[in-house]
Amino acid sequence: MPDSARAGEKTLAQDPEDMPADAGLVFIGHITTLWQDHHACPKSGTQAQDTCTVHLDPRYQDGLKSVESCSHLIILYWMHEARRDIIIQAPAFDSVTHGCFALRSPVRPNPVSLSVVELISVNGCTLKVRGLDCLDGTPLIDIKPYFPSNDSVPEATVGWHKQRSHPDRRSTDL
Amino acid sequence: MPDSARAGEKTLAQDPEDMPADAGLVFIGHITTLWQDHHACPKSGTQAQDTCTVHLDPRYQDGLKSVESCSHLIILYWMHEARRDIIIQAPAFDSVTHGCFALRSPVRPNPVSLSVVELISVNGCTLKVRGLDCLDGTPLIDIKPYFPSNDSVPEATVGWHKQRSHPDRRSTDL
Repeated sequence: MPDSARAGEKTLAQDPEDMPADAGLVFIGHITTLWQDHHACPKSGTQAQDTCTVHLDPRYQDGLKSVESCSHLIILYWMHEARRDIIIQAPAFDSVTHGCFALRSPVRPNPVSLSVVELISVNGCTLKVRGLDCLDGTPLIDIKPYFPSNDSVPEATVGWHKQRSHPDRRSTDL
Repeated sequence: MPDSARAGEKTLAQDPEDMPADAGLVFIGHITTLWQDHHACPKSGTQAQDTCTVHLDPRYQDGLKSVESCSHLIILYWMHEARRDIIIQAPAFDSVTHGCFALRSPVRPNPVSLSVVELISVNGCTLKVRGLDCLDGTPLIDIKPYFPSNDSVPEATVGWHKQRSHPDRRSTDL
């Protein structure tokens, strides 16, 4: 993720990081991955076929009851190294800029990311999953079951993404 | 949502609401729906065919650039009226209990909910969407584009849900 805004990018007048919080999150665990920095991360979860490990704090272990019966989960995590103030962004894979709410960039007012993962195993407080693309040590916020009736929309389209000018360029922003 | 734990439910030793926050969220807007209390809410987003309105705070409006090209979005919101301490729950539609991480209940350590919605229109800071089932006035946390390549898993299964004993019972917990 960029340390400084790129050409064409726009920052907020006030950084959400410096604003009083409206609600507080507690980290309920962390995620172990193979990736120590953003350049090493896979471009997206789809490309992340390596197994990652979700470590839930033992105080929340009861919350996993029945999770083992789910084939897929939604993992919410906190992008703790992401800036929060770049509201218009210039991803490497496009020559035009986009608003943060049209991107899956970690850089956004509330850097909560989500990944749909395949559940491989549950062992105590440890979940092995496939489909995560986050940094090693990323704080965990939530685990949810994936319901295709609500969550799966195969026909969904992202117009700007189809028309992006440099689809093969690597970006850490999507 | 229950004001008190039901039979078979289990609460955490320490309520996350009373713990020091590890990260702070800023509310970036709010959601207008037809539902003033939990009993009036649709059972799930799939059943919520009424149009809801997402009001983004004008200071974040630039972030909507290119959002109009998305057919579907993921909306993250804060379930501000939900308890955070019931770790094993007894939904009305089942005779057995489940952990909060196997449920889409708003009651969880971090009451961040997400809905996949169809985008109907964007007008300034106002988005009309279909597929939300939250309370009127719910605080908005984030808007993300829905990428079927990452987010759509039609074949996903939730084992416990298929076997639930009272599938027709209304519950505000899913």
